[in-house]
Amino acid sequence: KTRPPASLTNTPVLLPALPVSLVTSVFPATMALVAGPSQYGSLWPLPQKVHISDVSFKLSSSNFQITDAKESSAGPSCNLLQSAYRRYYEYVFVGPKNQKRGRDQPAGPSEVTELQVWITSPDSDCDSFPTESSDESYELSVDQPVAVLKAPKVWGALHGLETFSQLVYEDEFGAKTINSTVISDFPRFAHRGVLLDSSRHFIPVKVILANLETMAMNKFNIFHWHIVDDSSFPYLSQTFPQLSEKVRNRDGYRIRYFLRYRPNSIVPTEHRFTSFETVPFPSVFLRVWKSNPDIQKFMEQQGFGQDFTKLESFYIQRLLDIVTTTQKGYMIWQEVFDNGVKLKPDTVVHVWMDNGSDKEMAKVTAGGYTTILSAPWYLDYISIGQDWQKYYKVEPLNFNGTDDQKKLVIGGEACLWGEFVDATNLTPRLWPRACAVAERLWSAKEVTDTNDAFNRLAVHRCRLVERGIPAQPLYTSYCPREYKGI
Amino acid sequence: KTRPPASLTNTPVLLPALPVSLVTSVFPATMALVAGPSQYGSLWPLPQKVHISDVSFKLSSSNFQITDAKESSAGPSCNLLQSAYRRYYEYVFVGPKNQKRGRDQPAGPSEVTELQVWITSPDSDCDSFPTESSDESYELSVDQPVAVLKAPKVWGALHGLETFSQLVYEDEFGAKTINSTVISDFPRFAHRGVLLDSSRHFIPVKVILANLETMAMNKFNIFHWHIVDDSSFPYLSQTFPQLSEKVRNRDGYRIRYFLRYRPNSIVPTEHRFTSFETVPFPSVFLRVWKSNPDIQKFMEQQGFGQDFTKLESFYIQRLLDIVTTTQKGYMIWQEVFDNGVKLKPDTVVHVWMDNGSDKEMAKVTAGGYTTILSAPWYLDYISIGQDWQKYYKVEPLNFNGTDDQKKLVIGGEACLWGEFVDATNLTPRLWPRACAVAERLWSAKEVTDTNDAFNRLAVHRCRLVERGIPAQPLYTSYCPREYKGI
Repeated sequence: KTRPPASLTNTPVLLPALPVSLVTSVFPATMALVAGPSQYGSLWPLPQKVHISDVSFKLSSSNFQITDAKESSAGPSCNLLQSAYRRYYEYVFVGPKNQKRGRDQPAGPSEVTELQVWITSPDSDCDSFPTESSDESYELSVDQPVAVLKAPKVWGALHGLETFSQLVYEDEFGAKTINSTVISDFPRFAHRGVLLDSSRHFIPVKVILANLETMAMNKFNIFHWHIVDDSSFPYLSQTFPQLSEKVRNRDGYRIRYFLRYRPNSIVPTEHRFTSFETVPFPSVFLRVWKSNPDIQKFMEQQGFGQDFTKLESFYIQRLLDIVTTTQKGYMIWQEVFDNGVKLKPDTVVHVWMDNGSDKEMAKVTAGGYTTILSAPWYLDYISIGQDWQKYYKVEPLNFNGTDDQKKLVIGGEACLWGEFVDATNLTPRLWPRACAVAERLWSAKEVTDTNDAFNRLAVHRCRLVERGIPAQPLYTSYCPREYKGI
Repeated sequence: KTRPPASLTNTPVLLPALPVSLVTSVFPATMALVAGPSQYGSLWPLPQKVHISDVSFKLSSSNFQITDAKESSAGPSCNLLQSAYRRYYEYVFVGPKNQKRGRDQPAGPSEVTELQVWITSPDSDCDSFPTESSDESYELSVDQPVAVLKAPKVWGALHGLETFSQLVYEDEFGAKTINSTVISDFPRFAHRGVLLDSSRHFIPVKVILANLETMAMNKFNIFHWHIVDDSSFPYLSQTFPQLSEKVRNRDGYRIRYFLRYRPNSIVPTEHRFTSFETVPFPSVFLRVWKSNPDIQKFMEQQGFGQDFTKLESFYIQRLLDIVTTTQKGYMIWQEVFDNGVKLKPDTVVHVWMDNGSDKEMAKVTAGGYTTILSAPWYLDYISIGQDWQKYYKVEPLNFNGTDDQKKLVIGGEACLWGEFVDATNLTPRLWPRACAVAERLWSAKEVTDTNDAFNRLAVHRCRLVERGIPAQPLYTSYCPREYKGI
């Protein structure tokens, strides 16, 4: 007995593909509807240029290492890379230990024993933070006995390490295997973000860290941490310790705040995400302003009369001036633009309202502003079925505008607002649904084959599960190693 | 910045109530929208008769015990109860250990030091399994120094222990506290179930066990284990070991099977749930039957002609005859009834089709059949917002029929079908949404105040979290002790 979910009745029934050798062992023969494996294995997001040959090599945990190429501008002193090597060695050999070869046996003729990482630019960026103009490209060549990963900067190397780990699969005997492969890769959009909200519910640092790791596995590079809001103010400022207290003890209408952190200034993480500023959302102040005699007096002094738009404009201008002195960029939610507030030309506008977001994108970019898109990617809206396909099918540049306007779209963000989300359900609700957004923002515009995406994503989600992330299933399926927690 | 979910814009914004003493300490003062605490504390599901007085007593972990009343028909040899005493002692003193009193200090004048459990019927039912006619009633009187829990059978005692544990809260100093209380309780419906589906995704035994525990915390008494289906056949029969193999290796159209277990014959659990039988779903066989020459021949021999309804009837009759010999009951999904198959009068019909389920309930009960309802409680259908309220507002007897017809409705089940659910997301998706069904099936028909339910349920879900169950939040809120896992 079953009731096919309404959303699926008109779409083909698909089951996740595993590497060919696994299909028969993992799925009972009765499952006739298993989709074929993707020619791109389980790569996610799909690189810009991929060629995977039929020639395969083995990898042995006792005879494999990730090393700095001798020409590399980043060496043993680059902790960012060294810890990534350790992490990705673990990811490559995740699961039951490969017992095929003893340490004393010589390498076989078709074995990859080394991945050399070569940072080609004189400045590796190892000790800096990424910006929206950072070079994230890399080139990966898998051959035996040595695979080579070349990248101008550490950012591309980190992405390439993830890609390398995704190329490794298990043959029918459980041996770690990788095919001869050539990949050339770079992101389509510079700004690829995930928004988490710790104001509606507390999110333990452990959970935030796990999600940062998962972001890296999907080549996201922006963590938008919505730390505080009118529901709570869990941020304690070291510079202004009274700030939190004053907000907490405030009576009456609850003020919304947006503060910004480099996540790594708060959270010790081996990843470095570009982070950014958002400005307060003045329309929610209006009620307070209107009832405050001091504000009324101030408006008279400034000659604003009763025009609160002028006050809003004044407020935003002042705030952006302050932000400017910190050498940081600034973003605003779209209403500030919609309300006609005078903005600095380098303001980034965040488009989030689902109704007519294509028109909004056209309007904002026609005004010359840089923009990012979140409207179709509010992951707190849930439904039965494969809603990842809906997110996947979004084309961010699908609005009326010139080529110059399109260039102003620097990316987007998957938003998981927190009204109904805390540590109990955040991670499975976010993954693998956010993966769809990750591929849309990284891969080429032409990568739109939902069936091929399903085949890769189903295995990718099993990979996340193997790495300890409770990513929920796409549909009826098995993973070689299922989630162990409750 | 926030976007109010569409489903919430027209409902009052509520925040969960905690025991009064906790409200100020847990919620920042800025949260003006905290709803008032319920007069019924955090009891869930609400007992039939409750009187909680203002007089409160303390409980100390070093000076409290759950004991058998000397008149009880179940003593130290009743492992079912003894292990429940240990479990509920742990639940009562969950969280940071109460350090208020040393072991040597005498009990204070207003301290509850003992809960006496008194099974009043000569046969406690300790060594049997519950049936649909088992007595689950209990009476609980909390006074100092001794509280008394009276129940005719162990089933009522188990429910009463849960209720007692739900009466305990922490005062402003963290001391365990309970108010003088009198409760008289029994279930409105005999059949209160949860369906889990291990055919679409593997569910580890650990996860099933945790959900059985959570069912007991909500006074559910039926575990409907949908072990196998056309997607997979994870059941290995000891009596018929070839069964699983034959099904697994079958080509062509995938057969749906329904097998039935007493969960405790497979899963070692301290709870005992009534379990039941469902019969195969013959309509899915039709395709196979129509293309099978042997079946055609058989139909000719039987004089069925081309009337597959007669074949279906024949099949069901034979199957129910077999089940009858096992002394078990049998249930069918509603289509078997709808298709006009001749049924035995003691067949239970499971109403699951959402469209016109009230008419179906009227028709089934008019036919004299016992019925259970699941149609409005398919929890695999998800949406943003507080959908528990929708489940809560269902009235199972809200169909046109006589009093005798209504008596044939013995309960219902919350169904969490497994297409999109596995160990990564099952538990938070099920709880606390299934709690709404639990209260509807246990409490009096008149218990329909959604605001009061919210206040109790918000604290109840925090209790589940404290007990290690990742029950997801109802809405923006805090728990005194948040979930620790990822």
